[in-house]
Amino acid sequence: MKSLSRRAFLSTAVRSTAVTAAAFMIPSIVDAAIKKEKSAHKSEKKIQLKQNAVVLLQGDSITDYGRRREVTTFNSPEALGYGYASRIASALVLNHAALAPRIYNRGVSGDKVYQLRDRWQTDCYDLQPDVLSILIGVNDFWHAIDGHYDGTPEVYRRDYLALMEQTRNKLPNTQVIICEPYAINGVKAVTDAWYPQFDEIRAAAREVADQYADVFVPFQTVFDQALEVAPASYWTGDGVHANLAGSQLMAQAWLEATGL
Amino acid sequence: MKSLSRRAFLSTAVRSTAVTAAAFMIPSIVDAAIKKEKSAHKSEKKIQLKQNAVVLLQGDSITDYGRRREVTTFNSPEALGYGYASRIASALVLNHAALAPRIYNRGVSGDKVYQLRDRWQTDCYDLQPDVLSILIGVNDFWHAIDGHYDGTPEVYRRDYLALMEQTRNKLPNTQVIICEPYAINGVKAVTDAWYPQFDEIRAAAREVADQYADVFVPFQTVFDQALEVAPASYWTGDGVHANLAGSQLMAQAWLEATGL
Repeated sequence: MKSLSRRAFLSTAVRSTAVTAAAFMIPSIVDAAIKKEKSAHKSEKKIQLKQNAVVLLQGDSITDYGRRREVTTFNSPEALGYGYASRIASALVLNHAALAPRIYNRGVSGDKVYQLRDRWQTDCYDLQPDVLSILIGVNDFWHAIDGHYDGTPEVYRRDYLALMEQTRNKLPNTQVIICEPYAINGVKAVTDAWYPQFDEIRAAAREVADQYADVFVPFQTVFDQALEVAPASYWTGDGVHANLAGSQLMAQAWLEATGL
Repeated sequence: MKSLSRRAFLSTAVRSTAVTAAAFMIPSIVDAAIKKEKSAHKSEKKIQLKQNAVVLLQGDSITDYGRRREVTTFNSPEALGYGYASRIASALVLNHAALAPRIYNRGVSGDKVYQLRDRWQTDCYDLQPDVLSILIGVNDFWHAIDGHYDGTPEVYRRDYLALMEQTRNKLPNTQVIICEPYAINGVKAVTDAWYPQFDEIRAAAREVADQYADVFVPFQTVFDQALEVAPASYWTGDGVHANLAGSQLMAQAWLEATGL
């Protein structure tokens, strides 16, 4: 061990005492992935937070990731689970401390779109989100390929479009983030048998985002880029569920894509 | 809701596919706190990670924060708990993906220094950490002021110096990070009765760091700065335990102070 040293900070430090909404200098893999997204529109509309903005993160087990269901308060670490939702939340509450955003995780393991729909009153509308983020789709495919569900990518597309049409009517002022369903081939649950049909799920999510979202988060591209840095097993244990590194990667991509 | 927009990324993006160990542009409160630390030494020695570096985060409940004790593997979200340790870990595994660091949390709720000592063989030496981070001290004070413990700041100082002397002998090549015990006055458990004696705990930790650490993380200064942005209750529920925002604040400060 060596004697103590103090680290002199970079001279570019911001002096104001207010916490600016400065973007993290994200790892280059996230950067490369977001850049790959062609801008279909010239506007750079990002997500805006107001004071005490309610941010709702919705989806399946990737979002859920062990959250304590009985804890319903916002910004509770236990209620946010162990995945990307928790890591987005902690970044938001720090980086936007002056606005004191309120983040909820209402992901439910195993969900497909129609199951979101069935609980949407309680788990979306009643929370009156200012910002709504959804990651759904892998189960619409996975449960079907495993023979537990008779849906198809077309059913997913139709269900999702209908859900967002209804959501837009009920929450006209809510900003929407649609996240791309992703899969990492060659790890446990995900095999070549998933392709090319899984790409139809991804395309459907993109179509839903084109019509209803302010921001689309290209998770598949992000993971594809990540594979250039570390192998698939570094990011996921089963090809579907992001692990610690994968979750942080997703959170960083979400924050970058939303401008938050 | 509005039509889809894609966010064009900043032109300063790094183009290489390797993940650089680029520092986050941390919120200005962390920055201000780290800058306040006078550099006693000219060197800017930071923490260096080697391939598969073992990083051990030790301490009390602030570190522990509900980790699943039965899960002993590295980089497991459940084993890392809900606090700053988990948020340091996810940042490290993403930002240093090419090095694949292995992070363990062995914080134990309620611990004082002598209790670390009593379990140090299993919970430190046996893990052979390349990087060892310790946050301990609040209980050495809190349990005493509550009448459950008869130690004093001098006992804490003596215990800690002895622990680190032994640690240095057993782990001569391990890089050490000593974190400053902190308290946020006026919230629940922390009152004016804590002062000025609690500052003796802080001073003792700093003295231990001067002799044995590569990096000292000034958590008290960080929280003091944070109060300029949001009130105490935003960062902690009881003045001792950082909540979601407080944990993220601590993690960012740690990452900045260590250069990781």
